[in-house]
Amino acid sequence: MTHLTVTPDTAGITDVPGFEAAGVPCDLRQKNDPKRLDLALLFSLRPCTAAGTFTKNTVKAAPVLLCEQHLAEGGTFHGIVANSGNANACTGADGLRDAHATAQRAAASLNLKPSSFFVCSTGRIGQPLPMDRLVKGLERAVSEKGRTPAHGRKAADAILTSDTRAKTVTVTFTYDGKKHVVAGLAKGAGMIQPNMATMLAFLATDFSVPRSFLQKTLSEAVAGTFNCISVDGDMSTNDTVLILANGYSGVSVGDKSPRELRVLFAEAVWKACDALADKIVSDGEKITKVVEVRVAGAASSEDAEKVARAIGNSLLVKSSWNGEDPNWGRLAAAAGCAGAKLNEAKLDIFYNDTPAMTAGKPHADLKPKWKEIVRARRFTVTLNLHLGKAGYRLLATDLSEGYVNYNKSE
Amino acid sequence: MTHLTVTPDTAGITDVPGFEAAGVPCDLRQKNDPKRLDLALLFSLRPCTAAGTFTKNTVKAAPVLLCEQHLAEGGTFHGIVANSGNANACTGADGLRDAHATAQRAAASLNLKPSSFFVCSTGRIGQPLPMDRLVKGLERAVSEKGRTPAHGRKAADAILTSDTRAKTVTVTFTYDGKKHVVAGLAKGAGMIQPNMATMLAFLATDFSVPRSFLQKTLSEAVAGTFNCISVDGDMSTNDTVLILANGYSGVSVGDKSPRELRVLFAEAVWKACDALADKIVSDGEKITKVVEVRVAGAASSEDAEKVARAIGNSLLVKSSWNGEDPNWGRLAAAAGCAGAKLNEAKLDIFYNDTPAMTAGKPHADLKPKWKEIVRARRFTVTLNLHLGKAGYRLLATDLSEGYVNYNKSE
Repeated sequence: MTHLTVTPDTAGITDVPGFEAAGVPCDLRQKNDPKRLDLALLFSLRPCTAAGTFTKNTVKAAPVLLCEQHLAEGGTFHGIVANSGNANACTGADGLRDAHATAQRAAASLNLKPSSFFVCSTGRIGQPLPMDRLVKGLERAVSEKGRTPAHGRKAADAILTSDTRAKTVTVTFTYDGKKHVVAGLAKGAGMIQPNMATMLAFLATDFSVPRSFLQKTLSEAVAGTFNCISVDGDMSTNDTVLILANGYSGVSVGDKSPRELRVLFAEAVWKACDALADKIVSDGEKITKVVEVRVAGAASSEDAEKVARAIGNSLLVKSSWNGEDPNWGRLAAAAGCAGAKLNEAKLDIFYNDTPAMTAGKPHADLKPKWKEIVRARRFTVTLNLHLGKAGYRLLATDLSEGYVNYNKSE
Repeated sequence: MTHLTVTPDTAGITDVPGFEAAGVPCDLRQKNDPKRLDLALLFSLRPCTAAGTFTKNTVKAAPVLLCEQHLAEGGTFHGIVANSGNANACTGADGLRDAHATAQRAAASLNLKPSSFFVCSTGRIGQPLPMDRLVKGLERAVSEKGRTPAHGRKAADAILTSDTRAKTVTVTFTYDGKKHVVAGLAKGAGMIQPNMATMLAFLATDFSVPRSFLQKTLSEAVAGTFNCISVDGDMSTNDTVLILANGYSGVSVGDKSPRELRVLFAEAVWKACDALADKIVSDGEKITKVVEVRVAGAASSEDAEKVARAIGNSLLVKSSWNGEDPNWGRLAAAAGCAGAKLNEAKLDIFYNDTPAMTAGKPHADLKPKWKEIVRARRFTVTLNLHLGKAGYRLLATDLSEGYVNYNKSE
């Protein structure tokens, strides 16, 4: 029996053999903050296959367009240049030119093709990227990059915006006597700072993985992790998840690998995504609660997701969580707004394992128990619709006065 | 040329000939608040035709089910019993029994059929209606009802919950030498108090109006007014709009009436709904801004509505309005999330008449102007998608720390 080890708060990408990193300050916020790290370079010594998932927002930032284009071209990759402080979104043709110039610059410094670099940005929307500062920073990052944990940590710090802490994870397992690694770093989503917008996550592994298998593995993991979190219901113009596989271990994993290896690899990628997604929610802007919304017994998966999101995005529900008020009536009302098949007379609602309502009837006598449950920083609300077999799980947060205050202005 | 006169803050329903009203206290909140008016009776001396529109929430409160049933039975009507302090929602079979008992009680006191009364409730969800108190109050309302402005005002007060002021309007016009009236009263929507949930509006006219024509007129007015407001995006279990036509003036309006009369009547109902909807938004819980979101040039009406609602319901957008920050980037990002056809390179965004972005390019030089505009209590944001001819208008509000605080708990 093989075990996966999931370690949070690691060095992230430099835990994967053959990966180097750098995090440097270049004052992209132009706020005279010369020490704040705001440019990360992730670099693989060997060429990688890559896969990615991107925001569904119709308004896509320039770097997202570049990443999609480079992925579609289907070559091999060597790294990622990611900056915070400026989203390079709603910047039109100039923005796209700047994103490509960034990839070209990184490639030129390392004697590689521009298409071997991804570019990601997060920060203020609608501001031209200060390319002179970025280029200087990039040159410094190229000269400073390295494979120590300190290098990995600096990169993880450099992509943060309103996050209060760096987000990294390393998943290891042994297969056939050999240790393998999937590691990653991320920055906050949903909790979007003024004019900031983005969830970014970068994963890496030392397996050799064919592109299509890598994409399938990543897409499945993202669907069950990053896509199941909600802080404020807003989807950013820049959301990006990328994975690079450099084959440093000399071991391949793909459609024809033994089932055990395929499962282990998929599980490792999933766990890495899950750990980073959880960190993103838990570090949501000014949140005080992380609430797992579970919907069961829905007539369809779409219905289950609609109900979970209606609850996780309801201002009334989120405000009541903030106030530690077990307001199951608001849960029922929000579920009713979801546009899903629902029969009040069959509806069960639970706080953790304690029923609030079963078959449409409240259990008022259990109110002291609900009150105790919602006092915890983390709890679960479960809705069973008793109309079918479909379910969904969403990790949501409360809404605090601090969130509103924080997002009032730039 | 005939003019409509729209007068806000009137006596409401008692301005319509043949209508009586009462507002009495019966402490339905059970908070030992014996002076707070919480039961309204609206009564027509003559039988009325009626029409209604109701919440689309799958979870419908018992009184909504009763109203829908009575309307479907298609008889004539004499009035409405409406209480605040208890929504009679998520109360199962007992709740439905209580709603019917309320109609029966009103009918018995006035020698009428139970089906001639509508019943509406607003307040806490999931609490049994204290029927003993309600019945006592109802008897008092029957004995106290009258047609003075004071009676009308008491009824308007009795349906309020978290509203800070009563909401009434009277629309008058002269046709063929005779004065006609459409008047109404309402209570707040969207701005839903803890466990409170509901927008209620009751309209009345002294025309004689066939049922189907009355329903068509009301539905069209509601679609363009009450359905175009958004405070927190939550749809209540109890939302109800009713109109009663008692024919007291002896004049009929219907499909075969002269065009001028039909148009005038429809306009009067629309203006009454519009005035009440506007009052509801302006009195939203702890709001500081009323923002008219206009979408033009959409490929379809559905797309236009999606974009307007995505903007009006975005926490990030609403927070920035609260902070008087002209954050057009968030408007573009929210529009991109709407699931509507949108091309960033064609998008125009305006604050009032000042461009923030045209054809995807920001006008940073005009920022001082935008800042000045969003300082007003009321302003307009317009998005022209330049993809078609469809448009939508939504009246939205900001989101304040006060809202979150207010909705933390019961």
